[in-house]
Amino acid sequence: MGSRRNFLEKLTVSAIGIPLLYNSTSLFAATESAYEGPMLRVAIMGLGSYGTRVAEAMQSCKRAKLVGVISGTPSKVEAWQAKYGVPKKNCYNYENFDKIKDNPDIDAVYVITPNGLHCEQSIRVAKAGKHVICEKPMAINAEEGQKMVDACKAANVKLLIGYRMHFEPKTVEVIRMRKAGEFGKPKFFQGLSGFVIGDPSQWRLNKKLSGGGAMMDIGIYSINGARYMLGEEPIWVTAQETKTDPVKFKEGIDETIQFQMGFPSGAVASCLSTYAMNNLDRFFMTAEDGYVEMWPSTGYGPIEGSTHKGKLTQPHITHQTLQMDGMAQLIFENVQPIVPVDGEEGVKDMKIVDAIFKAAKTGDKIAL
Amino acid sequence: MGSRRNFLEKLTVSAIGIPLLYNSTSLFAATESAYEGPMLRVAIMGLGSYGTRVAEAMQSCKRAKLVGVISGTPSKVEAWQAKYGVPKKNCYNYENFDKIKDNPDIDAVYVITPNGLHCEQSIRVAKAGKHVICEKPMAINAEEGQKMVDACKAANVKLLIGYRMHFEPKTVEVIRMRKAGEFGKPKFFQGLSGFVIGDPSQWRLNKKLSGGGAMMDIGIYSINGARYMLGEEPIWVTAQETKTDPVKFKEGIDETIQFQMGFPSGAVASCLSTYAMNNLDRFFMTAEDGYVEMWPSTGYGPIEGSTHKGKLTQPHITHQTLQMDGMAQLIFENVQPIVPVDGEEGVKDMKIVDAIFKAAKTGDKIAL
Repeated sequence: MGSRRNFLEKLTVSAIGIPLLYNSTSLFAATESAYEGPMLRVAIMGLGSYGTRVAEAMQSCKRAKLVGVISGTPSKVEAWQAKYGVPKKNCYNYENFDKIKDNPDIDAVYVITPNGLHCEQSIRVAKAGKHVICEKPMAINAEEGQKMVDACKAANVKLLIGYRMHFEPKTVEVIRMRKAGEFGKPKFFQGLSGFVIGDPSQWRLNKKLSGGGAMMDIGIYSINGARYMLGEEPIWVTAQETKTDPVKFKEGIDETIQFQMGFPSGAVASCLSTYAMNNLDRFFMTAEDGYVEMWPSTGYGPIEGSTHKGKLTQPHITHQTLQMDGMAQLIFENVQPIVPVDGEEGVKDMKIVDAIFKAAKTGDKIAL
Repeated sequence: MGSRRNFLEKLTVSAIGIPLLYNSTSLFAATESAYEGPMLRVAIMGLGSYGTRVAEAMQSCKRAKLVGVISGTPSKVEAWQAKYGVPKKNCYNYENFDKIKDNPDIDAVYVITPNGLHCEQSIRVAKAGKHVICEKPMAINAEEGQKMVDACKAANVKLLIGYRMHFEPKTVEVIRMRKAGEFGKPKFFQGLSGFVIGDPSQWRLNKKLSGGGAMMDIGIYSINGARYMLGEEPIWVTAQETKTDPVKFKEGIDETIQFQMGFPSGAVASCLSTYAMNNLDRFFMTAEDGYVEMWPSTGYGPIEGSTHKGKLTQPHITHQTLQMDGMAQLIFENVQPIVPVDGEEGVKDMKIVDAIFKAAKTGDKIAL
């Protein structure tokens, strides 16, 4: 218990009850001994770069662990077996993964494949009786998203979307402040999400696999951010698309979209989603009594930000570690994150994405 | 002369010939003795709070001085005579100021009256053969602005608009950097201009006098800023209006307008103009090789900002002092500021204002 005390002394607990780890080796063992509840046993579907990032992050989880893989590439499966000690019996491919229903050693599947595959794959996972964790965007449109919600309900499994920012300490603190009224009434949100995308042959630039360009990939951070920063659901959107490179960004793949949202309170949001500008990852929210600015606001590295009260000093912890521990808590203990990460939350974002694409195409103000 | 020497002791000269204050005693005497050119003798029309600010700032000018007033309020005229040593023969009212044409001791009139009066008053000044300096917005629409340009040309006098930021050292440095290619190709500009306006009976909330609400007053900073930050003229605008208080903000008085612009290079701008949010005075520009952020970006106090190269450290000097000295240089020596401040520059902004109002009303993308 000594080490546990030691740990707890240095441990801070966020408003939503998620422990925030400090950077100390001694803390880790303590944490391990401290936690005696169930482990969320996760199989990752899609062993690409983000799947790898999640696998690495899960090595530090105390409530979740990587136990299985689903991949179409045998060499990757072998590598992961070796690296993460995944037993052969927990390895599947895209043809046979429905058999996961007969595997009592897997609780959940984290779908980290191209967006255009999420819907069908998630529904198959649900039908196999496993909880679904699906990377954002949950699908390529709201209709698909709703099908996933319905399928998971019918199968009595959870559907959770990979909204890692909902577990990120500085973001959580800002949302806590907003909910506590420390900013006063929110008035304006600005989200800028952009980077210059490389390899033109990647799946993110293939409409069928991605469902869209920058908007699906990163614009969705500004959409989701507007909602959790302002604490309201938008009632209208407008959008303007600009394309400077129609070779790289083909029909249906958005390069740059500016979009605006209006909210019931009169608050407004102005956002930018782009694959043509570097280092754009900025949130700004201004309210009656204060403001917050974050830059970077959604990247994997440390989030930096400040409010009218000063610099945000919550420690950086690997987002995906917090996310997977938080999702385990949600599944086993019904501990809700400060903002939902469920399928319904995902559908809300997808409806806005749909409306933005429509607004950009027609020039109309689209009611939500 | 002691206080003047004191001032000049701290003076240096920027790349574009605008004096920049500096912390060096030795520079002082040299500069003062160096200037022996003509003084721009200015009458201020409109002795309100901004007129007073300009008069105060002009006390530190070395190339311009306040010599006359035009006002409808005799008590104000008396107070200014006493405070600034304005001779009685240089005092006019709105009925008789055309007689200024017979006054050889006044070179220029600075029109600092409500926007809706600028056009007629400026044209009268031009017809009196005096240079016109007109506060921004130059008029309430582009048509009026063009009439002013034409009238000043016909009268062979200068028409200059009160674009003080074109003389502000940090802004000048950023524009210099942009012109020198130090940011690379500009990609995106964001301008946020807002404050919570007080007294609902003020002329700024009277359509006839103001021509509009926040857009005319402060949104124009973001319009002008987009142009000088990106170095291009927009080819389209879109805009969305939000009104939460239709009592305070009557028909034709905009409370909050989000507006977007597209530029020939593919660069875009997203801006906000509002009378309903405090402390919004932020510029951000991102480019291929760098960025700049400024907050405050256009206020009277010190501008604060940084670029990818670090903090902007140019000294703060009262903007209106620099502006009036710069305008004297422009008039007498044809020294052009880094970005024009002439009537044509004003008309460019007014055309965009017109298009924004049209876009906000119709929901259309307006080509420019």
